[in-house]
Amino acid sequence: MSTAIPLETTLPTVNARIYPKGGLDVLSHNEVARLRDVSTGMHDLLRRCALAVLTSGSASDDPRAARELYPEFDIEVHQQDRGMRIDLHNAPAMAFVDGEIIRGVAELLFAVVRDLAYTAMDLGPDSPRDLDTTDGITDAVFGLLRNARILHPTDPNLVVCWGGHSISRDEYVYTKQVGYELGLRGLDICTGCGPGAMKGPMKGATIAHAKQRRFKTRYIGITEPGIIAAESPNPIVNHLVIMPDIEKRLEAFVRMGHGIIVFPGGVGTAEEILYLLGILLREENANLPFPLIFTGPASAAPYFEQIDKFIRLTLGDDATKRYEIIVGDPDQVAKRMSAGIRKVREHRIAQKDSFFFNWSIDIPLTFQRPFVPTHEAMAVLDLHHGRKPHELAADLRRAFSGIVAGNVKEDGMRRIEEFGPFEIHGDADMMQSLDALLRAFVEQRRMKIAGEYKPCYRVVA
Amino acid sequence: MSTAIPLETTLPTVNARIYPKGGLDVLSHNEVARLRDVSTGMHDLLRRCALAVLTSGSASDDPRAARELYPEFDIEVHQQDRGMRIDLHNAPAMAFVDGEIIRGVAELLFAVVRDLAYTAMDLGPDSPRDLDTTDGITDAVFGLLRNARILHPTDPNLVVCWGGHSISRDEYVYTKQVGYELGLRGLDICTGCGPGAMKGPMKGATIAHAKQRRFKTRYIGITEPGIIAAESPNPIVNHLVIMPDIEKRLEAFVRMGHGIIVFPGGVGTAEEILYLLGILLREENANLPFPLIFTGPASAAPYFEQIDKFIRLTLGDDATKRYEIIVGDPDQVAKRMSAGIRKVREHRIAQKDSFFFNWSIDIPLTFQRPFVPTHEAMAVLDLHHGRKPHELAADLRRAFSGIVAGNVKEDGMRRIEEFGPFEIHGDADMMQSLDALLRAFVEQRRMKIAGEYKPCYRVVA
Amino acid sequence: MSTAIPLETTLPTVNARIYPKGGLDVLSHNEVARLRDVSTGMHDLLRRCALAVLTSGSASDDPRAARELYPEFDIEVHQQDRGMRIDLHNAPAMAFVDGEIIRGVAELLFAVVRDLAYTAMDLGPDSPRDLDTTDGITDAVFGLLRNARILHPTDPNLVVCWGGHSISRDEYVYTKQVGYELGLRGLDICTGCGPGAMKGPMKGATIAHAKQRRFKTRYIGITEPGIIAAESPNPIVNHLVIMPDIEKRLEAFVRMGHGIIVFPGGVGTAEEILYLLGILLREENANLPFPLIFTGPASAAPYFEQIDKFIRLTLGDDATKRYEIIVGDPDQVAKRMSAGIRKVREHRIAQKDSFFFNWSIDIPLTFQRPFVPTHEAMAVLDLHHGRKPHELAADLRRAFSGIVAGNVKEDGMRRIEEFGPFEIHGDADMMQSLDALLRAFVEQRRMKIAGEYKPCYRVVA
Amino acid sequence: MSTAIPLETTLPTVNARIYPKGGLDVLSHNEVARLRDVSTGMHDLLRRCALAVLTSGSASDDPRAARELYPEFDIEVHQQDRGMRIDLHNAPAMAFVDGEIIRGVAELLFAVVRDLAYTAMDLGPDSPRDLDTTDGITDAVFGLLRNARILHPTDPNLVVCWGGHSISRDEYVYTKQVGYELGLRGLDICTGCGPGAMKGPMKGATIAHAKQRRFKTRYIGITEPGIIAAESPNPIVNHLVIMPDIEKRLEAFVRMGHGIIVFPGGVGTAEEILYLLGILLREENANLPFPLIFTGPASAAPYFEQIDKFIRLTLGDDATKRYEIIVGDPDQVAKRMSAGIRKVREHRIAQKDSFFFNWSIDIPLTFQRPFVPTHEAMAVLDLHHGRKPHELAADLRRAFSGIVAGNVKEDGMRRIEEFGPFEIHGDADMMQSLDALLRAFVEQRRMKIAGEYKPCYRVVA
Repeated sequence: MSTAIPLETTLPTVNARIYPKGGLDVLSHNEVARLRDVSTGMHDLLRRCALAVLTSGSASDDPRAARELYPEFDIEVHQQDRGMRIDLHNAPAMAFVDGEIIRGVAELLFAVVRDLAYTAMDLGPDSPRDLDTTDGITDAVFGLLRNARILHPTDPNLVVCWGGHSISRDEYVYTKQVGYELGLRGLDICTGCGPGAMKGPMKGATIAHAKQRRFKTRYIGITEPGIIAAESPNPIVNHLVIMPDIEKRLEAFVRMGHGIIVFPGGVGTAEEILYLLGILLREENANLPFPLIFTGPASAAPYFEQIDKFIRLTLGDDATKRYEIIVGDPDQVAKRMSAGIRKVREHRIAQKDSFFFNWSIDIPLTFQRPFVPTHEAMAVLDLHHGRKPHELAADLRRAFSGIVAGNVKEDGMRRIEEFGPFEIHGDADMMQSLDALLRAFVEQRRMKIAGEYKPCYRVVA
Repeated sequence: MSTAIPLETTLPTVNARIYPKGGLDVLSHNEVARLRDVSTGMHDLLRRCALAVLTSGSASDDPRAARELYPEFDIEVHQQDRGMRIDLHNAPAMAFVDGEIIRGVAELLFAVVRDLAYTAMDLGPDSPRDLDTTDGITDAVFGLLRNARILHPTDPNLVVCWGGHSISRDEYVYTKQVGYELGLRGLDICTGCGPGAMKGPMKGATIAHAKQRRFKTRYIGITEPGIIAAESPNPIVNHLVIMPDIEKRLEAFVRMGHGIIVFPGGVGTAEEILYLLGILLREENANLPFPLIFTGPASAAPYFEQIDKFIRLTLGDDATKRYEIIVGDPDQVAKRMSAGIRKVREHRIAQKDSFFFNWSIDIPLTFQRPFVPTHEAMAVLDLHHGRKPHELAADLRRAFSGIVAGNVKEDGMRRIEEFGPFEIHGDADMMQSLDALLRAFVEQRRMKIAGEYKPCYRVVA
Repeated sequence: MSTAIPLETTLPTVNARIYPKGGLDVLSHNEVARLRDVSTGMHDLLRRCALAVLTSGSASDDPRAARELYPEFDIEVHQQDRGMRIDLHNAPAMAFVDGEIIRGVAELLFAVVRDLAYTAMDLGPDSPRDLDTTDGITDAVFGLLRNARILHPTDPNLVVCWGGHSISRDEYVYTKQVGYELGLRGLDICTGCGPGAMKGPMKGATIAHAKQRRFKTRYIGITEPGIIAAESPNPIVNHLVIMPDIEKRLEAFVRMGHGIIVFPGGVGTAEEILYLLGILLREENANLPFPLIFTGPASAAPYFEQIDKFIRLTLGDDATKRYEIIVGDPDQVAKRMSAGIRKVREHRIAQKDSFFFNWSIDIPLTFQRPFVPTHEAMAVLDLHHGRKPHELAADLRRAFSGIVAGNVKEDGMRRIEEFGPFEIHGDADMMQSLDALLRAFVEQRRMKIAGEYKPCYRVVA
Repeated sequence: MSTAIPLETTLPTVNARIYPKGGLDVLSHNEVARLRDVSTGMHDLLRRCALAVLTSGSASDDPRAARELYPEFDIEVHQQDRGMRIDLHNAPAMAFVDGEIIRGVAELLFAVVRDLAYTAMDLGPDSPRDLDTTDGITDAVFGLLRNARILHPTDPNLVVCWGGHSISRDEYVYTKQVGYELGLRGLDICTGCGPGAMKGPMKGATIAHAKQRRFKTRYIGITEPGIIAAESPNPIVNHLVIMPDIEKRLEAFVRMGHGIIVFPGGVGTAEEILYLLGILLREENANLPFPLIFTGPASAAPYFEQIDKFIRLTLGDDATKRYEIIVGDPDQVAKRMSAGIRKVREHRIAQKDSFFFNWSIDIPLTFQRPFVPTHEAMAVLDLHHGRKPHELAADLRRAFSGIVAGNVKEDGMRRIEEFGPFEIHGDADMMQSLDALLRAFVEQRRMKIAGEYKPCYRVVA
């Protein structure tokens, strides 16, 4: 599958040629040309995503770190007799074992190529799609997921796990235990595909699936180009999808997952919670079953109390009906999730909705439109009481999304370096609560930042 | 897989619900809506193609016959929990065994739905593709074949078999023997997917593949909406593709096949021969290996002499270097084809061309552009000596294509009924030879026409 | 899988080394040694059976013909890194395609080795088994079939087809049609694995299974060393079992098959009918469902009338309740068989009997004990009215068995050459009827004997 | 697969019916009868082994504990339509998830039934085998392993891991890391199938195999009735084999494994080391490559020093050439093992020995004959300098074997309770060293004994 020649550089690297196995990924001449195009930035994007895949497991979440460590890294896609070939130059040796690339890493590389090729042809500037309507965006999400071959008509069993990439040892072990209990019950796992709470459930489920002799397992990682460098997919992930932006990534989670478990996390997790609650609180979704469980080890109880309080304050007490908090009981989490998914199954059958894509859930355009966190956009967020819960949730989601960008995404970090922290305006109590929440994340070291954390935002009551 | 309720009509019919197995075919809401759209003619097209699949094996090649026999037949595509569901109303009972649809027929139905949905979205009036350039058309052919999941990076082994749907018992047995010898050598079969020479090789190969324990076999049928009714796919076909028109169908044969065998046939076969020779005679393809064998039982020797003479007269003696005539020797046919494909393999590796799609072969726009055989278009064909062989071949191909349409395609038959026979103009010797060839086809009963054959053309020297 | 070097001899032969695929057949040092043992006759037996497999499709049914045509043929079994290796010396070229052995033939060779090794160790002279009791013999049959890996817990669907190896073209086509109809209904085929009625149903079922996309098909051939040379297995057979003698072969048919179809045949077929009816007529089996259909094309109607008459005369009219005669209606044969097998299924579930081995059917020792057709043994058969039907059937079975041996088995032929025809004694009407039946077989050319048939028996009233 | 009804007892239990999947395990009437036979002790043996499988993961290694906890537990094997059915009565609820048995546990139960049935028929008192010769015993080991379907002709890749069931957290994590590095290199794992060092490598390999997309993995557990209760197999084990006694179990390890890794352990591990070195030190095995690595985390360095010293003292310095000690370097362990196995592969090819069973290694009868550790047998062990190393090793092995029995096997424990500790005689220095080693095992808590350890032996210089 690969032949590798070790090179001598500061960090060990290898050159390698990689061929796909099974040959499902077949590209046209056009698509290969597009991926090689330097002028459009496509080649650079490919290089960055590939590097993230190849440095899975490294400690930093600074997206620029990998590139500084492997400055000579390059990737080329070629057409060949049996289809595609990937040439790697000065690639991180950590992705190889005795000169052979880890098979799972190779698969992720081919997934990167597949998704970027599709995005370039189908969702790029000359896309035939209408990406300004709700239907058009949902159809694009569907198209990309179908092209990634992860829409299977199996019984509902996909549990999305959200949570931090930087969590305590105690919390990490807990996520493994929950994954184990889910796996024993035949449930598959979908996460944002980085370390921490995104990896633990997959590891636990792997052991449980082995014991249950489940071989057609799905460990799905859904990411986007802005986040992949900070949260590089670990190779247990056997289905990687790169959505074009965070909003489509969130929609993919919600339309594919049959239930969601939230582990302790940081700002990104908060963004995800707000996104989901904002949608579930819409009247149109009032009767839609959607199991949602917040859980962590006993030590995480205060964390969820604070989150719960924040939700009550901003979205109202009614919002809490949409989730359940379970502390320190992996078995119970899995039981409740199983039961919830059974209801989802019944509902889909009754509604003639598909098992593999939740067409019924209503996601309005305000949650779908890409939010670009400029200082202007952050400043005009409308964080005041009196708005409809789902509208306020949409803006709160954007606020957290901007802070994630300021913390770990390249564009965002550049903006903060240039113009200083974002200003976020809103009602005093909401701003205080928001600030408290964010400070707690820092104290609990839920951001894997080198050195002392310098906030990228400033709240203004 | 299906539940069926027998109905009482003149010809026995059943109602049935059919579900796909394996669930590879996943449609979006948009696509299902498109297929159900009566206003665009899409629903009617779906109904006609489905009926062709369901009446495989019937005797007539009048495309309207099936519809007259099953006037109440209808089909509906639904979205459901596990994906797609097809509802059949008053469907021909011949596709069922004890009330259960034959599994292969069901697969072909799902292939029809898949290809028509793709064509509607991707190659229809609002297509994002440029279908006026060589590259654009080739990319469309590639896209449709990839979507049909038949571009596999296996070793070259696909033999295209052309020949008549109406052949003698002797010739039919011979096509089975050739298919058997090909199958013993691990070769797969691709045809136009009707009866006669399109079915025999697949049957022979099926027995040989069973003896060789080949399980991943490919019996590919490539058709188009205009011809499917006359040449309905038999269910040994395990990969059916419906190309949007005859020109893309021919391009699909030529880009996917690693070699071509021509059995005795009628006008359609002549069209195919002219198409292929026209392309192979181009200077750009001079060095391209492409095994091409004309073969039949001893009784078919005179047939191939006449074809050979016609080719020499029209395209010149050089054209005969591109093919080999083997009479009455299936073993030898298979050996020569195997040897030829080994050369194709070496050439692809040397040229870094893919095994599964012949990007290198040069097919000019004149062979790609859809030819609509109106009386005007037929009348202006330029069939004179002195033209470049491949240009003359292109017009000869169109002449045959027009006659096929006049014989068995709905549109063409309507035109002939309304305006009388086509007039074909050309040099006297060429016109005589053409007429003699066509008359021989009639005498040899190579057209499965009810009653006496009334020619749909008139040659004018 | 094999590398072959063509040699020059009178009939073309090759030398080859063959390796198993999948590696299920693993032999011990002891077993390999036993197979190579010349002193015990085991090596000779192996050579004869292997030659039969390699000459499948040849015209003669003289067991000695193949050995005269390939006098230098030899086979050796070796132990090697990945397990077994078979070396063939001067093997018939007809089993190879372009120097490669036909994969199905190779599989049959490994089956021969597997079964002879098992028989040598487990059923040979130092066998630990008690082969003198009903239970002991049945257990041995079970052990050999299990070792051959054909006892699968699938739903009952195995139809045993009996009938002649030498039948008319018309009858052969009919057996293919019946096989096709059985195959469309998901039924598998088991025969004695020679040509004629033993091959046609498998060929028909192969095409039908392809159309129904059945991939885990079973074409089981059950033979024994005495008959394999005369009825060499065709390579569609994907499960070959060599039972040690004719009685265990018959028991294997009856315990594995869920229903039996009898096509026109000769003496061997008559033996099979008598064996089965003898068993089914026992009181112990009175309530056991066992679908049994005699069928052939319209032209075979007189044949079955004669058989029917013979049965009524010898076993009484009641015996006819155990079978159904269907003439010229393959569809109806398949429907009736399907319905019969559904009843078998219900009965097994009710009786807690296994689907894959009919433990319930009572087969008395008189049908199990090997019958050696010496002149003495043949002379003392007691063919008189007044005996219990199943006892008379047992002796009639032996009579036919002896005639088969005299016709086509090496030992039997030798005896006839030495001592003249067998004498068979019995009541006058029975003897006349028997003789008429046997003469009809000869007239209808149901014995593939070279030259004029010289009867190996003489009836004495 | 199972339907379960929870019962109320002290420890939670369930009743369940279990059906095999895939149906490879097909029993004869005789075999089922044998397994149900109470008179021969077979039923009791089945019950004990089944209970061990069902209580995998429990804390105690007292073989009698499980039976006291589940006094009402019973198991019945039934014959049924699709083959076998297992009925469990009052089975430990810990083997079930939400009332469904863990699939891996069910597979282990069927393995228990399969092996006990085979042993009863083939190795029992009326066995046809000669179990008093080296060849006879080796053939029996081969027969049982083949019947368990684990002799596959794949490339050599099976690493046997020995080590304690009771090890420190630090050591356990290390065994997982070694397993991970082995798994990354495509190596499979075989252990004695209990907890600790027998489980860690499998867990690590499971994660690595998932990353390398290896699906046909082998986690082989080889046990015997005397030890299974103390070291119950964890359900990651996907191939369980129950050998009839410790000597055949050791022979199975040595003939199947392509290399052996020894982690820190207790008396049992010492027995295994002595067994293996005794064999490898024979002149007949001098040229046989057999990679053998002793390894543990840094904290285990003193442990291996002590072992090393004991080996030098008893077997001489030459014995140390047969193994390599690697401390705290999992990557290096895996690399060295990979390299060693490559040499094994070359040697087998050169010697025409099979990959899956090491026929070449010479194991003398003295290592094969079952040793029954009575007080008499222990007292006459000849532990003096001057004996040939492999003979001394054989007696030292027996000494350790006896102590294991006295510690954790039912028979042995009963003897100690009745007659007091074993007396072991030998040269003073050897006895001191032995005693020191055993005391160190106790101090390091390498025996999972409840309460204070009371030695079951007394050394006598």
